Amino acid sequence: MAGGRHGRLYGIGVGPGDPELVTLKALRLLRAADVVAYPATERGDSFARAIVARWLGRGQHEIAIRFPMRPGPPPARVYDDAAAALAAQLDAGHDVALLCQGDPLVYGSFIGIAERLATRCSIEVVPGVTSVTAGAAAAAWPLAARDQPLAIIPATLAAADLADAVAGAKVAVIVKLGRHLAKVKGALAELGLLAGAVYVEHASLPDQRVRPLAEIDTAPYFSLVLVAPVARRLSGGPG
Amino acid sequence: MAGGRHGRLYGIGVGPGDPELVTLKALRLLRAADVVAYPATERGDSFARAIVARWLGRGQHEIAIRFPMRPGPPPARVYDDAAAALAAQLDAGHDVALLCQGDPLVYGSFIGIAERLATRCSIEVVPGVTSVTAGAAAAAWPLAARDQPLAIIPATLAAADLADAVAGAKVAVIVKLGRHLAKVKGALAELGLLAGAVYVEHASLPDQRVRPLAEIDTAPYFSLVLVAPVARRLSGGPG
Repeated sequence: MAGGRHGRLYGIGVGPGDPELVTLKALRLLRAADVVAYPATERGDSFARAIVARWLGRGQHEIAIRFPMRPGPPPARVYDDAAAALAAQLDAGHDVALLCQGDPLVYGSFIGIAERLATRCSIEVVPGVTSVTAGAAAAAWPLAARDQPLAIIPATLAAADLADAVAGAKVAVIVKLGRHLAKVKGALAELGLLAGAVYVEHASLPDQRVRPLAEIDTAPYFSLVLVAPVARRLSGGPG
Repeated sequence: MAGGRHGRLYGIGVGPGDPELVTLKALRLLRAADVVAYPATERGDSFARAIVARWLGRGQHEIAIRFPMRPGPPPARVYDDAAAALAAQLDAGHDVALLCQGDPLVYGSFIGIAERLATRCSIEVVPGVTSVTAGAAAAAWPLAARDQPLAIIPATLAAADLADAVAGAKVAVIVKLGRHLAKVKGALAELGLLAGAVYVEHASLPDQRVRPLAEIDTAPYFSLVLVAPVARRLSGGPG
């Protein structure tokens, strides 16, 4: 705006929840940024911010991007407003670290915001540990070996599409479970895959839980299901 | 063996190549381990070890697990011998950090070794940043948003299986490209997906390269292809 240097937008993956699963690069860049932005609930906390809160400094300007808690995709207005708030900082020459739980390019709000800013600033993405690999680690569950493909499937798909996607993949991780639990259990039961499916909630956090999916009746949003035609947990892994 | 405490096996993901993409947890555990093991070529170096070499101490016992450089899956003997070497250390009460490039449970030699040790020691897996998300970050290429599934497909599949897997997935990352480049390009061309496919080699390393796949004629093993029905790179990303 003032003719000076434009700021740079960093999309920073901060991992699945355990602050120790933050990378050295994420740590360096989020400490150095003038402005730190993060998705948050309408009135409450930000999970992404909480992961790295111990490393944020008093001199850093913070921008909470508030998402409505309604089911379904957020309205475009949320992304428009967030992009405008970040653009003002970038135009003023400030580097902005946009914190993303997991990885910025895997089901993150980063994508919708970065799409709106891509023509006006340079963007660097710092990859992070995803909940997919953290969930597999929690269950000591091999995700993919040799020639095996792996599918990552959102539980938010319509029932028929979900069943098609799982049936087409030999091995799958179903993410964003939450209120879609019953639909997912139903689809897996019909495919004969329920008995071997493993449920993981809050992977890498102190309240992490790993159970046979068949035993589970309610699930938080941060939960996932590991699906394979044959049981594959390493028996030396955690319970 | 001596009736004392058994050591613990840590499968430690050290990320895609950039030492800064190591997590704090990986760093803590690999520094603390009595024994550090890693896959290596028959006579030469270990990529996983090179990533974290600066943090290894003189007092740590190192075990290189030598894999033949022939195409195709390694012989079972390699895993048997590695498991025996690690078991001797674990039985003597030593904790063993088995370093894995990327994530231990995504196409890693860790799986074959851990399967052989799972009944005789406790295992903890530390998830890491994978080449899949590092490749997407290099290209500023959104991997998955909203209700979109994502498939990770090894280029080592037979041509017909590869084409089936790509055709069934709307969005895919084809890994382990190397000498399978021509087969992959052929399959994508037949599916009408070659023009939009993005090639990434050595993601996160100084010689990282991002190009349209159609321009590429040779590929190292550490390369991958991002496939989607429509172009999706964020235009503010790197070249």
